[in-house]
Amino acid sequence: MLTTEIVQKIKDDFKKQHFMQMLGVEILTIEEGTVKLSCVKKQELTQQHGFFHAGVLASILDMACGYAALSVMPKNADVLSVEFKTNLLRPANANSIIATGKVIKNGKTLVFCEGKITDITEQKEFTTMQATMFNLQKK
Amino acid sequence: MLTTEIVQKIKDDFKKQHFMQMLGVEILTIEEGTVKLSCVKKQELTQQHGFFHAGVLASILDMACGYAALSVMPKNADVLSVEFKTNLLRPANANSIIATGKVIKNGKTLVFCEGKITDITEQKEFTTMQATMFNLQKK
Amino acid sequence: MLTTEIVQKIKDDFKKQHFMQMLGVEILTIEEGTVKLSCVKKQELTQQHGFFHAGVLASILDMACGYAALSVMPKNADVLSVEFKTNLLRPANANSIIATGKVIKNGKTLVFCEGKITDITEQKEFTTMQATMFNLQKK
Amino acid sequence: MLTTEIVQKIKDDFKKQHFMQMLGVEILTIEEGTVKLSCVKKQELTQQHGFFHAGVLASILDMACGYAALSVMPKNADVLSVEFKTNLLRPANANSIIATGKVIKNGKTLVFCEGKITDITEQKEFTTMQATMFNLQKK
Repeated sequence: MLTTEIVQKIKDDFKKQHFMQMLGVEILTIEEGTVKLSCVKKQELTQQHGFFHAGVLASILDMACGYAALSVMPKNADVLSVEFKTNLLRPANANSIIATGKVIKNGKTLVFCEGKITDITEQKEFTTMQATMFNLQKK
Repeated sequence: MLTTEIVQKIKDDFKKQHFMQMLGVEILTIEEGTVKLSCVKKQELTQQHGFFHAGVLASILDMACGYAALSVMPKNADVLSVEFKTNLLRPANANSIIATGKVIKNGKTLVFCEGKITDITEQKEFTTMQATMFNLQKK
Repeated sequence: MLTTEIVQKIKDDFKKQHFMQMLGVEILTIEEGTVKLSCVKKQELTQQHGFFHAGVLASILDMACGYAALSVMPKNADVLSVEFKTNLLRPANANSIIATGKVIKNGKTLVFCEGKITDITEQKEFTTMQATMFNLQKK
Repeated sequence: MLTTEIVQKIKDDFKKQHFMQMLGVEILTIEEGTVKLSCVKKQELTQQHGFFHAGVLASILDMACGYAALSVMPKNADVLSVEFKTNLLRPANANSIIATGKVIKNGKTLVFCEGKITDITEQKEFTTMQATMFNLQKK
């Protein structure tokens, strides 16, 4: 069950993610096994055609998946990305995007997640991710 | 064969990559089928343990692979990332990193690339990528 | 729209897949953008613990995704697998499995699909796949 | 260091792989961190154009990577595939193929491997794989 303690742990961890602050990413919702982040387009986040850069999309998806995993792990756990695969379905032609990370399989050591980037209505899917997260138990 | 025209095209495209400038990425070398980029660590690029964020590594690898692909495509081609997979072998605990993108198979429509992030000596491997690039022929 | 002509094309192609016959795979359903295949366990398909071998699961998923792609392509198209990623969520401990391939994005040249292996009730998920398929236009 | 005990463990495990016997796969060489398997084409292993089926290639690569991982694990370890990604560079148009699995990073819990399918001369590359293997410690 998602405790307020774990929600707070995710929020505290997010503050240490300097890269997320640089991108202007914000936490939208934290539920058990599902975390949503949002990001507003600015010129620094774009590629040659003015769309969100693939790297920005992958970065935010990695965070959304990582926090989704953290939301189902024990309170003393830390999360590490093992690997992720990103599929760029279509150009992310939107002013704001939502990244949703979701736990598909919660194992003891490994948590498998899926993520997607959509527009703000969550109707149009731009990018998907499959990610394996590692439960790094703190001593 | 890699012409000066194509080298210039890559350099011109790189200037339009606002996200790469935000990260502080620079082109190191452009050879036929192999492109190297470099990046110096700054606090904005780090995750909770002070290492390079996985998203930063994936972003730079995607660019290195994309330009490696562009270096073997016809001069009027543009390149789009179809998908990439990133394997985080160990924390990127270094002050400067080099991203190497390399063409493995140069097809007419699809170019398959491999990439790696190493320290500045290119001896220690932090992250690997496999990427499929699309040859978007300009009309 | 899925025509009877395309359904027949998929059935005819399936007959040429000697490897699928060796595995004992059968077509369950063909809908527009979604194809289901089934397979019954026999000793030859197992690994060291008596479960379906990961390679068997990947092979059937690749076919299900390929035919899902073929179901949305023009009638003169042929399909080629570009790449696929398989995530082994848990051991495929079942006597019969269903592989479902589904089109996520139908592009002109590339079709992106997702697949999953479940037990016969389609409630328990063993394996997932993300696959990129190429539309090989026959002349 | 690769002991004769571990070589024997791999050979014994291989005998339990009914699926590999069905395909006609044989062990070529076992070295520390690198395992090579071979397979001769027969009609049952082919797809619609008479080439090796992508699933056959993925299956053999998964085994080669798994055994490469097992060759560097402690003697009481068992290996499980977590995930793999297969890139189909070109049709596997050959009478015999060699699958080489190689350890890239040997971690305590996870072992990351790369694999490739080539022709018998090992000059022509048909397919590549990146795989994450899990060290399942037997009690």
